[in-house]
Amino acid sequence: MTAAGATLAAIRARKPLVHNITNFVVMNETANAALALGALPVMAHAPEEVEEMAGIASALVLNIGTLSTHWIDAMLLAGRAASARPIPVVLDPVGAGATEYRTTTAHRILEQVGVTVLRGNAGEIATLVGAHAEVRGVESIVAGLEPAELARTAARRFGLVASVTGPVDHVSDGARVLTVANGHELLSTVTGTGCMSTALTGCFLAAKPEQPLEAAAEALAAFGVAAEDAAAGADGPGTFHARLYDALFALDPATLDARTRVDEL
Amino acid sequence: MTAAGATLAAIRARKPLVHNITNFVVMNETANAALALGALPVMAHAPEEVEEMAGIASALVLNIGTLSTHWIDAMLLAGRAASARPIPVVLDPVGAGATEYRTTTAHRILEQVGVTVLRGNAGEIATLVGAHAEVRGVESIVAGLEPAELARTAARRFGLVASVTGPVDHVSDGARVLTVANGHELLSTVTGTGCMSTALTGCFLAAKPEQPLEAAAEALAAFGVAAEDAAAGADGPGTFHARLYDALFALDPATLDARTRVDEL
Amino acid sequence: MTAAGATLAAIRARKPLVHNITNFVVMNETANAALALGALPVMAHAPEEVEEMAGIASALVLNIGTLSTHWIDAMLLAGRAASARPIPVVLDPVGAGATEYRTTTAHRILEQVGVTVLRGNAGEIATLVGAHAEVRGVESIVAGLEPAELARTAARRFGLVASVTGPVDHVSDGARVLTVANGHELLSTVTGTGCMSTALTGCFLAAKPEQPLEAAAEALAAFGVAAEDAAAGADGPGTFHARLYDALFALDPATLDARTRVDEL
Repeated sequence: MTAAGATLAAIRARKPLVHNITNFVVMNETANAALALGALPVMAHAPEEVEEMAGIASALVLNIGTLSTHWIDAMLLAGRAASARPIPVVLDPVGAGATEYRTTTAHRILEQVGVTVLRGNAGEIATLVGAHAEVRGVESIVAGLEPAELARTAARRFGLVASVTGPVDHVSDGARVLTVANGHELLSTVTGTGCMSTALTGCFLAAKPEQPLEAAAEALAAFGVAAEDAAAGADGPGTFHARLYDALFALDPATLDARTRVDEL
Repeated sequence: MTAAGATLAAIRARKPLVHNITNFVVMNETANAALALGALPVMAHAPEEVEEMAGIASALVLNIGTLSTHWIDAMLLAGRAASARPIPVVLDPVGAGATEYRTTTAHRILEQVGVTVLRGNAGEIATLVGAHAEVRGVESIVAGLEPAELARTAARRFGLVASVTGPVDHVSDGARVLTVANGHELLSTVTGTGCMSTALTGCFLAAKPEQPLEAAAEALAAFGVAAEDAAAGADGPGTFHARLYDALFALDPATLDARTRVDEL
Repeated sequence: MTAAGATLAAIRARKPLVHNITNFVVMNETANAALALGALPVMAHAPEEVEEMAGIASALVLNIGTLSTHWIDAMLLAGRAASARPIPVVLDPVGAGATEYRTTTAHRILEQVGVTVLRGNAGEIATLVGAHAEVRGVESIVAGLEPAELARTAARRFGLVASVTGPVDHVSDGARVLTVANGHELLSTVTGTGCMSTALTGCFLAAKPEQPLEAAAEALAAFGVAAEDAAAGADGPGTFHARLYDALFALDPATLDARTRVDEL
């Protein structure tokens, strides 16, 4: 069903350039996650260069975690350039539902850009499909739909792959729903791990653009396996965080598939 | 006098949302410190959303470490919204005294926002009360007042709690002065640890808004105890930094008060 | 030929203030590298304050890794103020060759600012001298000139010291070429290590402004030795990254020269 090992091997062989327009909080961390995995991340947000950068990249990652007007303009410019080629685009609607500005911006991007994968937590995705949700800051507390139904609904509504992360992740293209049960609870104690999973989704899409459902699930499974490895021997959030890059770097394509816990509902 | 353990337990139980408008250097690190402690940090600086975000937060943290016009506007907008509710506001006047721009901006915020706690080093706080100080970049070298007197003077001048950090911290509401002797010298080898103490002050204020003097001292004591724990076994600034988040996460409310070294002058 | 130990001792004794206008991805990391080494880094980018900050600093570091119009303006303002004093200026042309915007901006800075040291990878430097280069994002893949010749050519073309980093680094003032063979392959698995070497070049220049060729080579040698120390015992990129600050902090001036592998071609 999924073949995370083969896709990881392809990432390491090709070193795809992944263009990120992301938030200030996680720029270093998402770049390091992508680099440790084996891809080539680049951060660029100037309107003067985002179309050119998206033009040489193999995937584009948009993350609205710390917004402002110029950055939204850059995301739309880059996103349209990416859609026109096309290359895969991942959108992380960080904090949608927490403020009207974030909700509106996520909708603008969904309308104007050919988003391939929408990766968020249940509260953010529920907000975007108009379901009841409580979002506090960048954390989702309660969502009104079961995650499988939520993923399917969002996928259909926006015509993309919806990747709803949580204790168990649910990824849907509107028809099928894949679940990913890898991961570790320490992930929730480090800021930006959701953003990292979005960035890694971009890396997997770059290597497997024709199968976005599988690529999105593989990215979450690989990240979850790395988190499991990092947690072994960690003393808390800080050492776990450092070991997470070690674990991404050490992921073994040959044994990865045996460790991924991906199922189809 | 202080009850850091009980306040910490309250933070973990309530997970208060703390809105930060802070500098680019420490966004990730202050978010991770607040998260490891048990609070829910959020970073948002767009004028379009800061009032709404401050409207759902339990405390606001303003930090002028990397300024520009739009960010100052956002801080003033958010600060006035926070004051109007009111929720506690912490101001970190990073580098006040190093450039006129920083000094002026700190004064503008103090004038236009109901700041609850002003957290800075001796040079920064001395600059703001008009005492002699030498500030090099973001480090305070010499201040013209004894720290207890400096804290008391600043508290009276601006009508707030002044939290002056150093080898021993001095926190005053203008009448009383609390000293905090927890901490470790490795803190000065990692950038942003002052900013972290400001962010954690916001978390403690969110849980204990009615007692800002005690909350500010408790935050410094808890952070200092975590630094002591992190230093044990650290090989230098990098491993200390990683272990600092482990230590904040592992802080035990039941034993914290026995370890805090808070006194009243 | 070089005396990295003595320069390091001078940095620790004088704690020079080094003003950085750098990219969002590495602000924390380059500040921590400079601080661990023993210098006093400060980040400031507002047009209102950059001239004043450059006016009290001992060196200025410009890094174009995440550009936008206002930041370029600030770099030019600060750079001209630094040149007028003068204090040493280091330029890191991150991603020159990847987009026209970055290439053009690097050239503008080279024209309008008295750059002392130009520190980049082979692809970036080759782009700036008009040689064939392939730059993917922020990584240099192929350069059309041998690195020694490239360093010499760039130094002559721009009238500065060119510091071309790679598996072996080549530093030239247009006449002499020094090679630096310290370092470790794990450096390429952590984002911003090139930017760190640029920031440390600023620190060494601040302590040895009259000998920029030697200072630039010493900075790379000291950083390389620290990387060698950090790699011993690291489990991968994340723990290596944390240990890199430990190693910079622990660098021993008394034994450093015996470990540096600097040669003159």
